[in-house]
Amino acid sequence: MSAEPGSATRTEHDLLGELQVPAAAYYGVHTARARENFRMTGVPIGLHTDLVWALGCVKEAAAAANRELGQLDQRRAEAIMAACREVQAGRLSAEFVVDVLQGGAGTSTNMNANEVIANRALELLGYAKGDYARLHPIEHVNLGQSTNDVYPTALRLGLHRAAGSLLTAMAGLRTAMERKSVQFRDYLKMGRTQLQDAVPMTLGQEFGTFAVMLAEDELRLAEALGLIREVNLGGTAIGTGLNAHADYAAAACGHLARISGVPVVPAGNLIEATQDVGALVQFSSVLKRIAVKLSKVANDLRLLSSGPRAGLGEIVLPAVQAGSSIMPGKVNPVIPEVVNQVAFSVIGKDLTVTMAAEAGQLQLNAFEPVMARALFESLGELTAACTVLAERCVEGITADRDGLRAGVENSIGLVTALVPYIGYHSATEVARHAMRTGAGVIDVVRARALMDDAVLEAVLGAPELLTTPGLRLAAGGPLPLT
Amino acid sequence: MSAEPGSATRTEHDLLGELQVPAAAYYGVHTARARENFRMTGVPIGLHTDLVWALGCVKEAAAAANRELGQLDQRRAEAIMAACREVQAGRLSAEFVVDVLQGGAGTSTNMNANEVIANRALELLGYAKGDYARLHPIEHVNLGQSTNDVYPTALRLGLHRAAGSLLTAMAGLRTAMERKSVQFRDYLKMGRTQLQDAVPMTLGQEFGTFAVMLAEDELRLAEALGLIREVNLGGTAIGTGLNAHADYAAAACGHLARISGVPVVPAGNLIEATQDVGALVQFSSVLKRIAVKLSKVANDLRLLSSGPRAGLGEIVLPAVQAGSSIMPGKVNPVIPEVVNQVAFSVIGKDLTVTMAAEAGQLQLNAFEPVMARALFESLGELTAACTVLAERCVEGITADRDGLRAGVENSIGLVTALVPYIGYHSATEVARHAMRTGAGVIDVVRARALMDDAVLEAVLGAPELLTTPGLRLAAGGPLPLT
Amino acid sequence: MSAEPGSATRTEHDLLGELQVPAAAYYGVHTARARENFRMTGVPIGLHTDLVWALGCVKEAAAAANRELGQLDQRRAEAIMAACREVQAGRLSAEFVVDVLQGGAGTSTNMNANEVIANRALELLGYAKGDYARLHPIEHVNLGQSTNDVYPTALRLGLHRAAGSLLTAMAGLRTAMERKSVQFRDYLKMGRTQLQDAVPMTLGQEFGTFAVMLAEDELRLAEALGLIREVNLGGTAIGTGLNAHADYAAAACGHLARISGVPVVPAGNLIEATQDVGALVQFSSVLKRIAVKLSKVANDLRLLSSGPRAGLGEIVLPAVQAGSSIMPGKVNPVIPEVVNQVAFSVIGKDLTVTMAAEAGQLQLNAFEPVMARALFESLGELTAACTVLAERCVEGITADRDGLRAGVENSIGLVTALVPYIGYHSATEVARHAMRTGAGVIDVVRARALMDDAVLEAVLGAPELLTTPGLRLAAGGPLPLT
Amino acid sequence: MSAEPGSATRTEHDLLGELQVPAAAYYGVHTARARENFRMTGVPIGLHTDLVWALGCVKEAAAAANRELGQLDQRRAEAIMAACREVQAGRLSAEFVVDVLQGGAGTSTNMNANEVIANRALELLGYAKGDYARLHPIEHVNLGQSTNDVYPTALRLGLHRAAGSLLTAMAGLRTAMERKSVQFRDYLKMGRTQLQDAVPMTLGQEFGTFAVMLAEDELRLAEALGLIREVNLGGTAIGTGLNAHADYAAAACGHLARISGVPVVPAGNLIEATQDVGALVQFSSVLKRIAVKLSKVANDLRLLSSGPRAGLGEIVLPAVQAGSSIMPGKVNPVIPEVVNQVAFSVIGKDLTVTMAAEAGQLQLNAFEPVMARALFESLGELTAACTVLAERCVEGITADRDGLRAGVENSIGLVTALVPYIGYHSATEVARHAMRTGAGVIDVVRARALMDDAVLEAVLGAPELLTTPGLRLAAGGPLPLT
Repeated sequence: MSAEPGSATRTEHDLLGELQVPAAAYYGVHTARARENFRMTGVPIGLHTDLVWALGCVKEAAAAANRELGQLDQRRAEAIMAACREVQAGRLSAEFVVDVLQGGAGTSTNMNANEVIANRALELLGYAKGDYARLHPIEHVNLGQSTNDVYPTALRLGLHRAAGSLLTAMAGLRTAMERKSVQFRDYLKMGRTQLQDAVPMTLGQEFGTFAVMLAEDELRLAEALGLIREVNLGGTAIGTGLNAHADYAAAACGHLARISGVPVVPAGNLIEATQDVGALVQFSSVLKRIAVKLSKVANDLRLLSSGPRAGLGEIVLPAVQAGSSIMPGKVNPVIPEVVNQVAFSVIGKDLTVTMAAEAGQLQLNAFEPVMARALFESLGELTAACTVLAERCVEGITADRDGLRAGVENSIGLVTALVPYIGYHSATEVARHAMRTGAGVIDVVRARALMDDAVLEAVLGAPELLTTPGLRLAAGGPLPLT
Repeated sequence: MSAEPGSATRTEHDLLGELQVPAAAYYGVHTARARENFRMTGVPIGLHTDLVWALGCVKEAAAAANRELGQLDQRRAEAIMAACREVQAGRLSAEFVVDVLQGGAGTSTNMNANEVIANRALELLGYAKGDYARLHPIEHVNLGQSTNDVYPTALRLGLHRAAGSLLTAMAGLRTAMERKSVQFRDYLKMGRTQLQDAVPMTLGQEFGTFAVMLAEDELRLAEALGLIREVNLGGTAIGTGLNAHADYAAAACGHLARISGVPVVPAGNLIEATQDVGALVQFSSVLKRIAVKLSKVANDLRLLSSGPRAGLGEIVLPAVQAGSSIMPGKVNPVIPEVVNQVAFSVIGKDLTVTMAAEAGQLQLNAFEPVMARALFESLGELTAACTVLAERCVEGITADRDGLRAGVENSIGLVTALVPYIGYHSATEVARHAMRTGAGVIDVVRARALMDDAVLEAVLGAPELLTTPGLRLAAGGPLPLT
Repeated sequence: MSAEPGSATRTEHDLLGELQVPAAAYYGVHTARARENFRMTGVPIGLHTDLVWALGCVKEAAAAANRELGQLDQRRAEAIMAACREVQAGRLSAEFVVDVLQGGAGTSTNMNANEVIANRALELLGYAKGDYARLHPIEHVNLGQSTNDVYPTALRLGLHRAAGSLLTAMAGLRTAMERKSVQFRDYLKMGRTQLQDAVPMTLGQEFGTFAVMLAEDELRLAEALGLIREVNLGGTAIGTGLNAHADYAAAACGHLARISGVPVVPAGNLIEATQDVGALVQFSSVLKRIAVKLSKVANDLRLLSSGPRAGLGEIVLPAVQAGSSIMPGKVNPVIPEVVNQVAFSVIGKDLTVTMAAEAGQLQLNAFEPVMARALFESLGELTAACTVLAERCVEGITADRDGLRAGVENSIGLVTALVPYIGYHSATEVARHAMRTGAGVIDVVRARALMDDAVLEAVLGAPELLTTPGLRLAAGGPLPLT
Repeated sequence: MSAEPGSATRTEHDLLGELQVPAAAYYGVHTARARENFRMTGVPIGLHTDLVWALGCVKEAAAAANRELGQLDQRRAEAIMAACREVQAGRLSAEFVVDVLQGGAGTSTNMNANEVIANRALELLGYAKGDYARLHPIEHVNLGQSTNDVYPTALRLGLHRAAGSLLTAMAGLRTAMERKSVQFRDYLKMGRTQLQDAVPMTLGQEFGTFAVMLAEDELRLAEALGLIREVNLGGTAIGTGLNAHADYAAAACGHLARISGVPVVPAGNLIEATQDVGALVQFSSVLKRIAVKLSKVANDLRLLSSGPRAGLGEIVLPAVQAGSSIMPGKVNPVIPEVVNQVAFSVIGKDLTVTMAAEAGQLQLNAFEPVMARALFESLGELTAACTVLAERCVEGITADRDGLRAGVENSIGLVTALVPYIGYHSATEVARHAMRTGAGVIDVVRARALMDDAVLEAVLGAPELLTTPGLRLAAGGPLPLT
């Protein structure tokens, strides 16, 4: 990041030599180098607001622990912590300028945080930015820390927060499904397996199923959050804790839990926790699972609403925009379609996480930044997908009760309910005859006098009874083998 | 592979020491060690018949080149070549016992080939198996070769042959589609976009599209075959050709092309060709592309045949087995379903190939065996899928011409054809009214006197005209902007 | 499956008409049709022994429940249950001939089981195979069941059992790692981050990390097993329980838990459980996670053993076979290499499962067979990988303690331990000078008189102290900001 | 998009009713609805500058064709075309506000383009924005078009242009590799297979290999561009060309080639081309292939530069930033690391494309928007990766010629060169002895008098001769079998 002509700069230096950074910038030489090195996507880490918040929390916790352990003096510590709280509040996010795609295991992100916090702390203390002899980004802000414990910890904490938003959106979608389940509880319709007509169910059961699926996924996500609450803060470079006070890990984690409100705990083995990204793989897998389910729901909604005349036409999705630039009056299932696309996007990102995890070597996985990007994007997209699906689609779905019921009465699948009374073989014959002639199943059974009329009436007279377990009548019991 | 009790064995040795191998076995100590080491899947390389054939070809070509260049004496060369021809013919496939999942860049496969060929050659010469002082698996059969050029070459050659079978099966499926395209050429039906009714087309066009898709994929596969005809034979250990005669690479490739009937050529840079698996990645990608298309076709067939009463019901797939153990008379689209599953399997294997390719290091990719397994399996599954889809599904598909046409006449989508005459805005109003009231589009247009009746008749009177480009009538031309 | 010429056959029929099946076969017409229809891979379901066992358990549990509920007479029930126990024991596995890749949501697998059990039961009762009027594959063996509850239940049960084998193998590998961790507990070496020399650790810590990773994965797998113990038995066709006795689901699950020894429980919502494969997605994800970790371990072992002279050369893997057909004396890390390949294979299969899950539609996922195949293969391969890695690699690893320690003493990374005493800036200067001149870090510090000699000795004199947290000496405390 | 309080708005309407849009906006009601509906990623399509350019080209070509065929009057046509040229130039990109993740097969993107162009054209004609009675977004700008031909065409055209940038960056990286290949042409070093020392090569050969790999990938990308030059413009809604003039497709494609400078051609079958995304799958696969190769190159660079003291240490990458916040003087391979991460990102996006392609149904693939996003992102990231790898890493790589040569002379691998003279068996013994004792290979051969000294000197005296094919000396020729 060379300074623009005419603009004021200050001079900083690192092991590569001197560099001019904008005088107004809170970031410093390390950030500026990284910004130059990684012109990858144009997306700065500052846009991952949950990550920035988490970095602010971790740095504040470290300063609090260092002060407590006598490693950092009161005045510096307080200034650092005040700056960290501004970072948490998002007031310095525009200073987090490093690209989300970066080499170096998060070093540039950590350096960016160190520099922004140091310069803001200097300012709060009444000194000039860059006056690192007084308060140094590495020697004070990063004291007792390494990128290799700060970054993994902040990443997990940030993901935890972003996942909270997803859980809220999922609950909203689930609730919308549950409401539809109640609304449609007595809309009898044909169930389908393998896209072929099967046996009756209610449309309420269909939507109830979606709600149950979502509820399960909410549980799985909550479980995965438990795994990422284990952090390696205090492990420093490779998890051995070199250069950290013996009590630092426990103190820092305690402060972090207090500051963030997330009950993080130190991992049992910090060396393992420093190189292992298994929890991120699992977390990503759960996002993939959610994506798979949402895509299945979207597929079903699109199928059930296909038509209006040459499709299944069981439900009507609310129109949210015109569907076509050439076909007048066409309304398309654009909301489920965007949900499908989110799913494909998230599943792709899960592969990115998998490959980045597999590529870790020896004492560190250098590829957490690309995991961070993938996971924050996936969380954001899934949250948006759940929200839009609930608000702009599910809540407005309607259906035609009479049309659905007529479909059941006209179906071949009804014959399945007669198997306990007439046997699989006879039922197959009835089905084939009905198919061939277009006749109704009940008529064929009657014509062939396969069942007593009263029994037939009892079994099929109330088709909604067919949507719960239990044989309708004593079917006569099994004939003993003779 | 320790000998079974009571069975005869012979003693062989390698750098690890002595080992007993079954006296009857054509394979030797290296194979036996590998068999012990890699108890992975239970599937021996001998089941990959195209790979075994290719190994036989490569070893014969090497022997021919070595003889020609004075590196191998006539008698040994002829015995080796005779043994190789037996390998090609599959007569020794049961001796290729190493697991398809193996470490070592294919070394165990190459050793297995060397040993089987050496022992069979010894036998042909009248000597005992294991008499390696006379004819040695490495010093003679593997002369001037390395696993690192033999295995990649044989793999590509074997894939080339297996791909030939796939091309035949694809052509068969394409032909079946083309026949349906002709059969259904005047079956007018509604086309659909985004699962919503769109505008008319013929069922013949629908099947014709499948045929065109397949034809394109056949071309892409043929192109990819061009890439895998470049081989690194003669590169030896790392492509520098160490220990190979200066003329060996050219001679061996020439013989290989003659023996195999496949016009293989030496790669331009043997060092690159020894470590690079880009051609395998691309080949696998083309198999993935084919899988994606087949899955789309299978999805469409399942959709179009959904029903029989509560689905689209546009086509009927031939029944090939009973569909359900509980629902009498149910017939399911089991053939398209297995095609979908093949697609998911192949797409997964493409990822395996991708990861194995990415994991190559420095002068060699050690992970070609898992690529080999993935690619041979994918080729086999795709070949089976195309065959079964053609023979047990597509060829027997039927449709109801009158029902399809009635759907078109009843559709809203017809209104699109009127846009050039009444404008997008009016057409939208017509569509909405028709939707709301259940009326027919033509009736609404007439009731609103939006078009001259003669024009309306000319435009919609022959709906099949709507399935090709071209405005039906002068629409009056554009009004100039005033 | 048309009968071979000259062999005895019996005639069976289904809705497609008559078919000859081999007189000796326990399977019947449905199986024979499916075998013809699905000539896909050549691998019969009988090779998935855990699936066959599970089918035997489910069918026995269903018969027991039906008998208990008065739906099935005593004599038939006992014969069916006796046949089921033979299936469980693997005695009829050769009769499970349907291809592992099959359309139809597992219908063919279920039919195969029904037929084999019926015919074996008939035989036990003293009747001829095919005498279905006495005991029918569908009306008796499949009574109260549907493929759509039997197959998903059996699949989960079979996976549960196969996962038990994997857990055993993982524990074995973990134990081997733990033993190495103890053996190498005082082998001081350089830790590395981003492949660059970092700070000291012990080789015991390195292996201890592998053990901890594996232990975590064992926990995750055990958790995932909890999810697949929820089964939908009793849901019949679409989960509504149509045609099952109201008490059947509870009874059948109870019997299944007793028979199998696996504490399966009925899912809370059988409609959801019938169409949802989220538990399989999660299970597969955990296998992927294990694969990712194993691949990382294999990568590390290959890196650490690289050489023998131009590599890291920190450890020596046991030689298990000759490494090269051209390079004498070369020994390659073939065991870790096969582990990597298993990982790539498993990760690919996870994608297959993901896609098959996403493709489920409405009341059923028709693609469980390809998930079954992928998951059983992955379990088998991972089990083999853990076993072979423990037994043929890890247990025999050796290292050179003195060489490793010399590397630490010669390192630049030691300077990190001096940062608390001389500051980051001075330490950077020392490191740069040492790098440029080839000098030792300690010598440079002494030459520059940066530390008191006694302090330097105290800090670096016992480098193993650097492998645990804690500052070695009071570093003088922070200078207050003035 | 509701107007902000106090800001001026204008009223537009669509089939859902009225909506206020900002008076200053060039976009209109359809765009505003879509923007509300798809609050997914926050990234507007306007940031995909190549797509915006392509939309401008397609719309201009359509207007030119419509004018030519008498469908559009001169004055409107010219205004539209002038507006299109502004779109191409990027002057209206800020008006392309729809989210990159959107439902609807690109309808919202097409509508956004129609509205921006219409309003800008109105302005150019001296009318107010929104005065659609004079010039209408659909009836005039979209005349003879459908989203379903406009969007796929524009997508392919935009990708073609973005791929041009990638090809330039790849050529730059290749050139950098070629320069290193020349610079290091006589740096003798050990080649490695399976991370184990193999046989000698030059560092120039190593870099030359990277250049050849890249050159091949450039060819493959150029081939894939040929496939995406086939467009479906003129197919309208489903490829049947409904409502387009019979000569429109040819005319529009001709104009498009002229305007864009890209030789696009009409697809042979427009119905197929409208639903098929095979070319995008293949294009994505080639990007994946490039990613796989780049990752392999990055892995090799990281391996070869590992150290500085406890690694391979064969090359030194230029330092571009400080490596660690805790370890002074540490310099990490951050540039190759970011390249690896780009590769993982691109491979993930390829999966997204694969799934979106597989999900296409019937006459259209509704999921091209997520493919568009994935492909434009991948192209941008790969372009950045090639550029940064060339400029900030490869060009500055240095190596130590003497150290590398010493490694060769000290190696075991030299013995391979002696196999033609002393046989594989003796060579194995020499290698084992050298390994065990630490002796040099040449010394062992001499001590054992295995070769004439003059021959030994001739073979090994000039190790660089070992880096090309050809036996060094007559090895005595084969002994005939006796």
